[in-house]
Amino acid sequence: MDITPFAAHEPPCYTVVFTSVRRQEGDAEGYGEASLRMDELVRDVPGFLGYESARTPGGLGITVGYFRDEDAIRAWQRNAEHRSAQQRGRDEWYDSYTVHVARVERSYGFERG
Amino acid sequence: MDITPFAAHEPPCYTVVFTSVRRQEGDAEGYGEASLRMDELVRDVPGFLGYESARTPGGLGITVGYFRDEDAIRAWQRNAEHRSAQQRGRDEWYDSYTVHVARVERSYGFERG
Repeated sequence: MDITPFAAHEPPCYTVVFTSVRRQEGDAEGYGEASLRMDELVRDVPGFLGYESARTPGGLGITVGYFRDEDAIRAWQRNAEHRSAQQRGRDEWYDSYTVHVARVERSYGFERG
Repeated sequence: MDITPFAAHEPPCYTVVFTSVRRQEGDAEGYGEASLRMDELVRDVPGFLGYESARTPGGLGITVGYFRDEDAIRAWQRNAEHRSAQQRGRDEWYDSYTVHVARVERSYGFERG
């Protein structure tokens, strides 16, 4: 997966911040596979713009998705395979997670010349 | 630093997504110290609600801050010590970064029972 930050760009645009704590014990089976499948699936969502993800070993993971509008977010959240992965996440992979859906007001960035 | 995700809560609330790529080479001197100092400083900003941070070793870092309103974000962005840390970031620590300021529309979460 690409480590380039998602570029600053003109609103309107929405972001979904998904913050998660993986279970320390228990079964991580299928997690990596499901992540790769979600990476594949989300790219087919009309209005999906990109995402970034980071996880501190043994700590928090943060995934930030960018979407053109709320319809795109709804389409992604209702995707059947995604819903089933969310359910597995609650049953098997995560101790906790939080989702914040937010409307991007402005963006800017820096790149070494 | 705490690894509990920032809890879902009622809007209005704003979020600042700071995504960065650290320089592979060059001088990381002062980075850890500055991070700790920013952690301390931001807590004094009226309207600061919390933040979360994750960094994949050798990859992306994502820090997500939560603020009550745009005034709180402006106060933080204009803080003199923070501005000087931002400048050092561009001069010394980062290859690139992106900032997205967004208004939280809704939040929800999951916690293992």
